[in-house]
Amino acid sequence: MFETAELGRTVSKDVYAEREAALRVDLLALQTQLREEASFPLVVLINGVDGAGKGETVNLLHEWMDPRFVRAKAFGPPTDEELARPAYWRYWRALPPKGHTSIFFGNWYTPTIVGRAIGSMKKGDFLREVQRIRQFEEALVDDGALIVKLWFHLSKKAQAHVYDKLQAKKSTRWRVTPEDLERHKRYDCFRTVSEVVVRETSTGACPWHLIEAADRRYRELTVAETLIKTLRRRFAATTAAAPSTTSLSVSLSTPSSLAKAPQKAPRVPTILDTIDLTTRIKKSTYEKRLGGLQHALHEAVEGLRKRNQAAVLVFEGQDAAGKGGAIRQVTSALDARDYQVIPVAAPTDEERAQHYLWRFWRHLPAQGKVAIYDRSWYGRVLVERVEGFATEPAWRRAYREINEFEEELKDGGIVVVKFWLQIDAEEQMERFKARESTAFKRFKITPDDWRNREKWPAYETAVHEMIEKTSTGVAPWHLIGANDKYSARLQVLDAAVDAINASIKLPPRR
Amino acid sequence: MFETAELGRTVSKDVYAEREAALRVDLLALQTQLREEASFPLVVLINGVDGAGKGETVNLLHEWMDPRFVRAKAFGPPTDEELARPAYWRYWRALPPKGHTSIFFGNWYTPTIVGRAIGSMKKGDFLREVQRIRQFEEALVDDGALIVKLWFHLSKKAQAHVYDKLQAKKSTRWRVTPEDLERHKRYDCFRTVSEVVVRETSTGACPWHLIEAADRRYRELTVAETLIKTLRRRFAATTAAAPSTTSLSVSLSTPSSLAKAPQKAPRVPTILDTIDLTTRIKKSTYEKRLGGLQHALHEAVEGLRKRNQAAVLVFEGQDAAGKGGAIRQVTSALDARDYQVIPVAAPTDEERAQHYLWRFWRHLPAQGKVAIYDRSWYGRVLVERVEGFATEPAWRRAYREINEFEEELKDGGIVVVKFWLQIDAEEQMERFKARESTAFKRFKITPDDWRNREKWPAYETAVHEMIEKTSTGVAPWHLIGANDKYSARLQVLDAAVDAINASIKLPPRR
Repeated sequence: MFETAELGRTVSKDVYAEREAALRVDLLALQTQLREEASFPLVVLINGVDGAGKGETVNLLHEWMDPRFVRAKAFGPPTDEELARPAYWRYWRALPPKGHTSIFFGNWYTPTIVGRAIGSMKKGDFLREVQRIRQFEEALVDDGALIVKLWFHLSKKAQAHVYDKLQAKKSTRWRVTPEDLERHKRYDCFRTVSEVVVRETSTGACPWHLIEAADRRYRELTVAETLIKTLRRRFAATTAAAPSTTSLSVSLSTPSSLAKAPQKAPRVPTILDTIDLTTRIKKSTYEKRLGGLQHALHEAVEGLRKRNQAAVLVFEGQDAAGKGGAIRQVTSALDARDYQVIPVAAPTDEERAQHYLWRFWRHLPAQGKVAIYDRSWYGRVLVERVEGFATEPAWRRAYREINEFEEELKDGGIVVVKFWLQIDAEEQMERFKARESTAFKRFKITPDDWRNREKWPAYETAVHEMIEKTSTGVAPWHLIGANDKYSARLQVLDAAVDAINASIKLPPRR
Repeated sequence: MFETAELGRTVSKDVYAEREAALRVDLLALQTQLREEASFPLVVLINGVDGAGKGETVNLLHEWMDPRFVRAKAFGPPTDEELARPAYWRYWRALPPKGHTSIFFGNWYTPTIVGRAIGSMKKGDFLREVQRIRQFEEALVDDGALIVKLWFHLSKKAQAHVYDKLQAKKSTRWRVTPEDLERHKRYDCFRTVSEVVVRETSTGACPWHLIEAADRRYRELTVAETLIKTLRRRFAATTAAAPSTTSLSVSLSTPSSLAKAPQKAPRVPTILDTIDLTTRIKKSTYEKRLGGLQHALHEAVEGLRKRNQAAVLVFEGQDAAGKGGAIRQVTSALDARDYQVIPVAAPTDEERAQHYLWRFWRHLPAQGKVAIYDRSWYGRVLVERVEGFATEPAWRRAYREINEFEEELKDGGIVVVKFWLQIDAEEQMERFKARESTAFKRFKITPDDWRNREKWPAYETAVHEMIEKTSTGVAPWHLIGANDKYSARLQVLDAAVDAINASIKLPPRR
């Protein structure tokens, strides 16, 4: 494949001078459009052979574009905050907001290619990593990101020539390191691995562009042209049509009676009807059992820390279902340094300018810690679906994205425990009334809450489908009957302890 | 001092029930006002004796306030990303935005008190840390933050009683750890150190509130009352009057002829007149010297890494003074993983809701890295001053804040190298015209640039005063004559190399 980038193409000084100005004008105009529309982020990946001018290209793009809206980032060895979280946390963290450009070199391809080329990564792991890259890029592209992937190629001979030339002059000799020369010896190995990676990750939405890099002027013009062409095509497509519905690529097994989610048919039974809402326990029983369960949870989290694992607890439920109270019972069992409660409110503008999962990646717990999400990424398929804040293709796609996200968490050593707290309409009415009549609870009830009640059937449908599509082996939903708050809280603690203990019986992750 | 919190005050069940509701209503109303005005952040510090109910209080505040706008955070042992940066980076990172509340326990007081009590911190260092705490809190308060500091006190006997009671029951026994009992033995030591800290950090703007913590009900009501009273007083003060001018507490020596900055008197000579703008060097000379200097810079940064130090390069200068070109000459000498260019544009809303230094703390380099600020925190005393975006008290205060900030950086192992690139009005005009006539440079010139030219004298005054007040031994300004860009770039590289090399000859930091 790489032979097509070994043709010896060059550009003369005159031609370069002539075309440079026009390309810079075009590039700037497109960047201005990108910034002004601010409808998607631009991610430029710079990969390829050492000595092919990757660093120089980054410098060049800084010169050619408006540098205030371009960030270059190279990922070195991970820090311990990064090592303590799922592998892709560092990349999510660095994504550009809409309208901005990030240039990543030393990106998510690097550990996979280097690991395989030097032999430290097994074939199975390698293929899995390639698959993960595809999923990650697909999630970004589905959300609208434009990813331009540039592969800089040099033949082995051309690489040797570059190093010879740099070493010939005293003022540039320092630019060739012993590692460069060491890797030059392994050129063929890198080439073989790279070919697999480039082939397997060249998807329709996200193809690689091969850049013949031996001639500086040819390389620079080609980079500019590729960026311009890709941006132009993207702007043309956006104005042409809205994105079409993406079909779901995962299909989860569900009891056949529930396979078809009720659409706009409120009284068709849903999975929620299977939740027992009648259990009641006495306050004295509750108090007797609470201490033991909290102790057990405390121990379970100790166990997590010893295994370098972490936990994410997700609380969803109707308004007034008692999420806050259940969360406080959990946190009072934990050491303050070990948990973080993340109340999910309206996104900030920095968050709005990113993929909707970005703001959850942002707060992932480090090893040994617990993150408690008071509402979560499921907002996408609940409130955003019902209220029409997300388009249908967007929330339908979210089931797959969420499942992949939770799988990433599991792979990163994070056990995900999800609770749906269910009350019935009568109980909710009681609680709303109680809130209205107690001055210090009144803030908890807003006109929105009353409005949401009217959409009860639509929410039931959405919840049912959410559970159907996202209750996976990796992260099953725990359905909690919450008409009785004492019973609900004990059930939550119980399930949390069991789920964490089950996860730490597994062998510790790498 | 702590005897005043050993009076055995208690609250009966009935009184508690009666007052709780009223206090919760008040607290919520004040929180709503805080959130709606969003004019300042609320920081609640919870410190004091172990076993005094600090964790329970955090749980309680979550129950009593609207938890969506409250974040609790406890700082454990620092992560390596935190260790790799100045000590207060972790606290800046966690500050709440305006309108929100953060509850910090295990905060900036903890390492100082524990370190001194167990004897690992020397007296001089201890006093220095106390001073640093005062400066940090002062910076936040000056920016409008409300800091409520609650000190939970128990006598030694009361602490023993708490532990005995917890240990007596099987369901709560696990809450008393061996460390708790170990620290109980050192109670007197902690008490002595705490007394010094509480006394020395009880400033007018930021006093400590002693909470007698032995009786749960008394403690809870007192916490609520303290918060309510403090918030009320703050809101009353805000509506009463605007803040008065803060006088500068630092005075830097300047040549006596320049001691008085020219105010609205454009042609009084400024420090800028001392910059030589006539030096010109040939392109061939430039190219000959460039490689060597870049090599030297590369080596200098290697040296930084070996010493676990870092560098911040700050570029300021008139429009079109050539900051971008100078930065590219620097970055092309560095490995992409080792530097980050931070273009300082308009703040995002997350940034706007914080202290103005927060967005610079955010991007501080880790050990071994270089952060290059393309414009910087000096915007406060340049554009924000001249354009009136900052009030006079705010920009006047900024000189001191900036000096303290740069001292923090130095203490954290970061060398700060600051460049002012100076061109004269004629050269700027030439460059503006060139930009207008070159299509791909036109984006660099905006109506603002032409407007700014008219304010040239006002900017000269501001720059002069900036240099006068912030060119310190810790971080001197390098004044670069930039009419000739080749000469300017070499001067920048030269000064950067010298400054970094001078810093790494110092003994490596702890």
